[in-house]
Amino acid sequence: MIRIFVTGGTFDKAYDEIRGRLSFGDTHLHEMLRLGRAHVPVSVRTLMMVDSLDMTDADRDVIVRNCAHCDDTCIVVTHGTDTMVETAAALARGVAGKTIVLTGAMIPYAFGSSDGLFNLGSALSFVQVLPPGVYIAMNGQHFAWDRVRKNRETGVFEAM
Amino acid sequence: MIRIFVTGGTFDKAYDEIRGRLSFGDTHLHEMLRLGRAHVPVSVRTLMMVDSLDMTDADRDVIVRNCAHCDDTCIVVTHGTDTMVETAAALARGVAGKTIVLTGAMIPYAFGSSDGLFNLGSALSFVQVLPPGVYIAMNGQHFAWDRVRKNRETGVFEAM
Amino acid sequence: MIRIFVTGGTFDKAYDEIRGRLSFGDTHLHEMLRLGRAHVPVSVRTLMMVDSLDMTDADRDVIVRNCAHCDDTCIVVTHGTDTMVETAAALARGVAGKTIVLTGAMIPYAFGSSDGLFNLGSALSFVQVLPPGVYIAMNGQHFAWDRVRKNRETGVFEAM
Amino acid sequence: MIRIFVTGGTFDKAYDEIRGRLSFGDTHLHEMLRLGRAHVPVSVRTLMMVDSLDMTDADRDVIVRNCAHCDDTCIVVTHGTDTMVETAAALARGVAGKTIVLTGAMIPYAFGSSDGLFNLGSALSFVQVLPPGVYIAMNGQHFAWDRVRKNRETGVFEAM
Repeated sequence: MIRIFVTGGTFDKAYDEIRGRLSFGDTHLHEMLRLGRAHVPVSVRTLMMVDSLDMTDADRDVIVRNCAHCDDTCIVVTHGTDTMVETAAALARGVAGKTIVLTGAMIPYAFGSSDGLFNLGSALSFVQVLPPGVYIAMNGQHFAWDRVRKNRETGVFEAM
Repeated sequence: MIRIFVTGGTFDKAYDEIRGRLSFGDTHLHEMLRLGRAHVPVSVRTLMMVDSLDMTDADRDVIVRNCAHCDDTCIVVTHGTDTMVETAAALARGVAGKTIVLTGAMIPYAFGSSDGLFNLGSALSFVQVLPPGVYIAMNGQHFAWDRVRKNRETGVFEAM
Repeated sequence: MIRIFVTGGTFDKAYDEIRGRLSFGDTHLHEMLRLGRAHVPVSVRTLMMVDSLDMTDADRDVIVRNCAHCDDTCIVVTHGTDTMVETAAALARGVAGKTIVLTGAMIPYAFGSSDGLFNLGSALSFVQVLPPGVYIAMNGQHFAWDRVRKNRETGVFEAM
Repeated sequence: MIRIFVTGGTFDKAYDEIRGRLSFGDTHLHEMLRLGRAHVPVSVRTLMMVDSLDMTDADRDVIVRNCAHCDDTCIVVTHGTDTMVETAAALARGVAGKTIVLTGAMIPYAFGSSDGLFNLGSALSFVQVLPPGVYIAMNGQHFAWDRVRKNRETGVFEAM
């Protein structure tokens, strides 16, 4: 069983047609798993729905505690890309003996041109085969939590 | 460097609007890698463009020889789902010491509701971390080539 | 009230993922009207679900009788493009005093790249303002039923 | 020849993946006309790229002058929905003897679920057959400029 914790981020941004701006509603994760015809057993729980630039230390505590206390040892966390590395570091400090893979998207899933489905397929795969540790899966690659940074100019995650 | 061999299958079926039927044109793989914002180095080569129900032993020989003789040790093969298991068996007999992951789609990528992008993200991830061997990556799962069958009624790949 | 009669055609072709080929299921028209946020009152009825190359004289009789006998004077007929002109001629012979607009698509709606939504928006608009008669609405244009042919090489409807 | 003037609005909003927010780039109109396989002769010109809430009187003057001075008598204006009625009123005061149809979208075209393609097909059709005057084409309907308001709660244009 793979546990998926949803925290928001670009991945789940929707378009609020009444107010004419981006917003968060329900997660698109169930629809994405259906589209991907995923048959790996998963359990999805939404922890929060926030832009990762607005994520507080208290929010990160919630994520860490949920990952630490759930029974599952394979965990995917969907997360905004801007502070994904910070949350990965918090998870590395607070959770041991589990494989945790953070992923997200540069373009909202609700847009036709999203990278979200590709990244979800990637994260769900990495989490099944990587040894315990905290990783980021973006751009078809995986990075140990302390060996990666997001290049803010290009939007690409880079090894360091 | 990951080598990607394209052989056709539902993955790459297009709609021929003049003749009103499904057909094969160029592969959608480059567009899919761009959409997924994949930054893992890949080299794509189209070996054939066929429905896997029409694939001959000679076609399988071409795939096996290309996998055996290329310099790369991580290989993804896109393939129709109907005879994917047969080609996986041929690869297992003919290639040693490489990680080969076959993947495909139940719905053409050109359709809005395709599982192709999810499967591509999955296959590209599995191929980077699985030990040498021949695998099938479908439905978010990976299977050793001799432990899987496609359920023709449901379209789902199942462990056996 | 606009009456919409569904007869199949490329418009409504779906992909049968178990058999790996195009097929007809339920019409996509309700979903398309929802996507277009159409607020013009419509009443949708599926008469048949066929490729227009397979449409018989008996099928055309069904369409003509339904258009003649319904209470509505504004009618849209979704139809395969290959014999759309023939059905338009049958309607012109069999129905008087109503505005009937036939439309269809070159690419199935279920494909991401379909012209179907554009054509539906066009047909629903023409039918509200054109005088009684039988018309074809394709490619953003409208044609009287006896002034149009489909160019089989280009897939474009042309005035003649 | 139909003249199309682009002014921005939700229609043309794009997602800026580096900054994580909605923005305006180039218009999607050419791509939409291609997707719709439109064969009606059009001439597209971008006058501005603004959210209609930010549109000034000076901006409206630019639109009115362009509509008044161009040679074409059939004109489509793509426009944000929030102040579409105001611009329609300005056009009615400033331009005579031409058929002008304003249209827009509730969801950006770049989103998979946009109503933009439907509305474009609708506007291009109405403009070819309506008598001179200024109209709004939304939700599959057309309204004379002085007989319509946008319901801000539902996002629907209503006759009044």
